[in-house]
Amino acid sequence: MGLPGAGKTTVLQGAIAGFGEWKVLNYGDLMFEIAKGRGLVSHRDDMRKLPSKEQQKVQKEASEKLEKAKGKVILDTHCSIHSLTGYMPGLPFEQLGKLPVDYLVFISAPARDILGRRQRDTTRKRDMVTIEEVEQDILVNTAYLCAYSAFSGAMASIIMNADGKLDDAVSKLKEIIKKVGEE
Amino acid sequence: MGLPGAGKTTVLQGAIAGFGEWKVLNYGDLMFEIAKGRGLVSHRDDMRKLPSKEQQKVQKEASEKLEKAKGKVILDTHCSIHSLTGYMPGLPFEQLGKLPVDYLVFISAPARDILGRRQRDTTRKRDMVTIEEVEQDILVNTAYLCAYSAFSGAMASIIMNADGKLDDAVSKLKEIIKKVGEE
Amino acid sequence: MGLPGAGKTTVLQGAIAGFGEWKVLNYGDLMFEIAKGRGLVSHRDDMRKLPSKEQQKVQKEASEKLEKAKGKVILDTHCSIHSLTGYMPGLPFEQLGKLPVDYLVFISAPARDILGRRQRDTTRKRDMVTIEEVEQDILVNTAYLCAYSAFSGAMASIIMNADGKLDDAVSKLKEIIKKVGEE
Repeated sequence: MGLPGAGKTTVLQGAIAGFGEWKVLNYGDLMFEIAKGRGLVSHRDDMRKLPSKEQQKVQKEASEKLEKAKGKVILDTHCSIHSLTGYMPGLPFEQLGKLPVDYLVFISAPARDILGRRQRDTTRKRDMVTIEEVEQDILVNTAYLCAYSAFSGAMASIIMNADGKLDDAVSKLKEIIKKVGEE
Repeated sequence: MGLPGAGKTTVLQGAIAGFGEWKVLNYGDLMFEIAKGRGLVSHRDDMRKLPSKEQQKVQKEASEKLEKAKGKVILDTHCSIHSLTGYMPGLPFEQLGKLPVDYLVFISAPARDILGRRQRDTTRKRDMVTIEEVEQDILVNTAYLCAYSAFSGAMASIIMNADGKLDDAVSKLKEIIKKVGEE
Repeated sequence: MGLPGAGKTTVLQGAIAGFGEWKVLNYGDLMFEIAKGRGLVSHRDDMRKLPSKEQQKVQKEASEKLEKAKGKVILDTHCSIHSLTGYMPGLPFEQLGKLPVDYLVFISAPARDILGRRQRDTTRKRDMVTIEEVEQDILVNTAYLCAYSAFSGAMASIIMNADGKLDDAVSKLKEIIKKVGEE
């Protein structure tokens, strides 16, 4: 899991190199395919603008697909999805309870780094943000992470992907993947 | 939901103007009526000084009344109630699980603004506080908010009611009420 | 519950003097005895280096012993155990649900004080830490605390044990023990 601008995908791509037996499933892709298939959205970033009940239905359908996934799976997702009116939990207990999760990993970064990355990212339609909003995003996502961990009993890891420290973040995630694979 | 000094009631009163079909129920009023009826307290702010088991009994009775409420309801309550010895959860899972909640809205404000408002408020019996205590209140209430959201699957919104920005806070809450009403 | 360096044991020892009817059980001691008995570890601080599934098994066995404890019990434990790859929840819902908890007390301290104490503590094998890591520890443990409270309905108290303020921390914990004993 990770915030927009935390570098989740980059860290994950770096870390899974060499772990051929692991399959990465992207919750957002799954949800987008389902929503696009129904004609609800055409652009990925419009997902956040869907009515929340619509989002929740799509999320539920995606998690039903996930339950059937076999083997060693890394789920690429979010602690929460920040839409225009608030945070939607990424793994509400009803759905988390059906997934056999060993580790909950949250890729984060210092608020200042995340803000800078969001401001430089012109490829995705993103709303304007302030440093206070990024700090709130980090706090809220950490709180969700701990709630998921307390509920499921799974370990909660926070990996900091600070500017210029990508290698450290990648090797920390590698270590976790290796550990879970061995247990 | 909101902290003392966040301006919850003011924001709510501003936002519901024009939403005639919505009914506002105040958890604290309900609890105070029940406790007063039993001769446990005479002043509203003494509620926080009740033994915690007594508070929890009163809270449970209030939530039983709420379960029977019909139509579009806004529940005016707290993430947690800060009594002399700690925080009592405002919506423990046992009770939250019985209420069909769509949105959890937390009215907050910068710690400095909340501190100033608490210091100027002489109409309610309030304990002395420091900026560190207000910061802790905000953190704790945000963590409760996310736990409630993860448990119920409901969206979590944080509306900042900074000094001089009441109109912004009101229009954000209006937008949520409108959205929930339409869904 | 408390972070390493928060002074949990010192505060607890000070507070229970004079409460002869209370029994203190230490979760870590229980877990260490179980793990040592199985030849998994020889030094207490190596517990954090056990594979997480091994830790969870030992934790479960310890909580089964706790369920059978009678009378007035104070459980000396952690909100979470920070091992090399992440946080393990100290009271996952599955186990917390079996324990009749009235109060959840988290002994904390300003991040700077905790850092100084950890750096001066040479008797325990502790990893190097930075102020940012201590701040994250405090945030994560507060979030777990609130999740436990929301789940169980128990009060959540945060007692600050700042440098030079041990007496204040002790008297706050005394007050809670007295209150719970009377209810």
